[in-house]
Amino acid sequence: MSDSFTVSLSLKNDKLLFKGSARDNDYVSMDYFPPLGDGKGYTGLELLLMSFSGCSATSIVFLLRKMGKTILGLDVESEGVKSDVLPNAFKEIVIAYKIKSKDVVGDDVIKALKLSEESVCPVWAMIKGNVKVSPSFEIIA
Amino acid sequence: MSDSFTVSLSLKNDKLLFKGSARDNDYVSMDYFPPLGDGKGYTGLELLLMSFSGCSATSIVFLLRKMGKTILGLDVESEGVKSDVLPNAFKEIVIAYKIKSKDVVGDDVIKALKLSEESVCPVWAMIKGNVKVSPSFEIIA
Repeated sequence: MSDSFTVSLSLKNDKLLFKGSARDNDYVSMDYFPPLGDGKGYTGLELLLMSFSGCSATSIVFLLRKMGKTILGLDVESEGVKSDVLPNAFKEIVIAYKIKSKDVVGDDVIKALKLSEESVCPVWAMIKGNVKVSPSFEIIA
Repeated sequence: MSDSFTVSLSLKNDKLLFKGSARDNDYVSMDYFPPLGDGKGYTGLELLLMSFSGCSATSIVFLLRKMGKTILGLDVESEGVKSDVLPNAFKEIVIAYKIKSKDVVGDDVIKALKLSEESVCPVWAMIKGNVKVSPSFEIIA
């Protein structure tokens, strides 16, 4: 596990296209919607949503496996609901986990979500108090 | 400008590799460090840092242009400093902006940073109170 968390970004055109990277990962393109940008990349809000969704999904899989469960798949759909107040941040994130497993039961997921929020998912901790998180889940055998 | 902020993620192996996307953007690979994952993608923390860095950089460029300034380039380096307390979220983000411009002066950047924090950058608003942001900048003619 690495403790190095650094990111580099660079403006790539005369509008708002940025390319960013961390470690040896592929570049991520970030851009804003027209007319200010060309819409050819993720917005900061979309990456925040991806960050939260991936962090919470990772911790759910980790925690369910730690309970001895077998996870055959996990699909996540998340939606950020924007506030009307500037800077129009997300007031709520609605996130749905579709878990493929033959031995996971609802109480396991409820427990994993609780632990994820309280002490396992760092991104959840960083938006706490500012963004309401509304999770739901489905277990597919 | 779109109001649709949705993200989809899917677990892609028997460890912790996820692939995520939003709109028609390229997939982003997310993974965790070995041995739990294979380290072949961004962590949630790295994407949070990218999200914040890109959001604040976008707003700084937007605001400086709104002041009538010409931005020839912007490079950003940011570092997330982790807390010792679980879930080891960032307690601080140290971010350095290198602005290439012939007409931007220090006071312009200070003003843009203030506006970005207060009312322009939504990601900044979402981590407010939980993460300290320490910005610095350099202007290169």
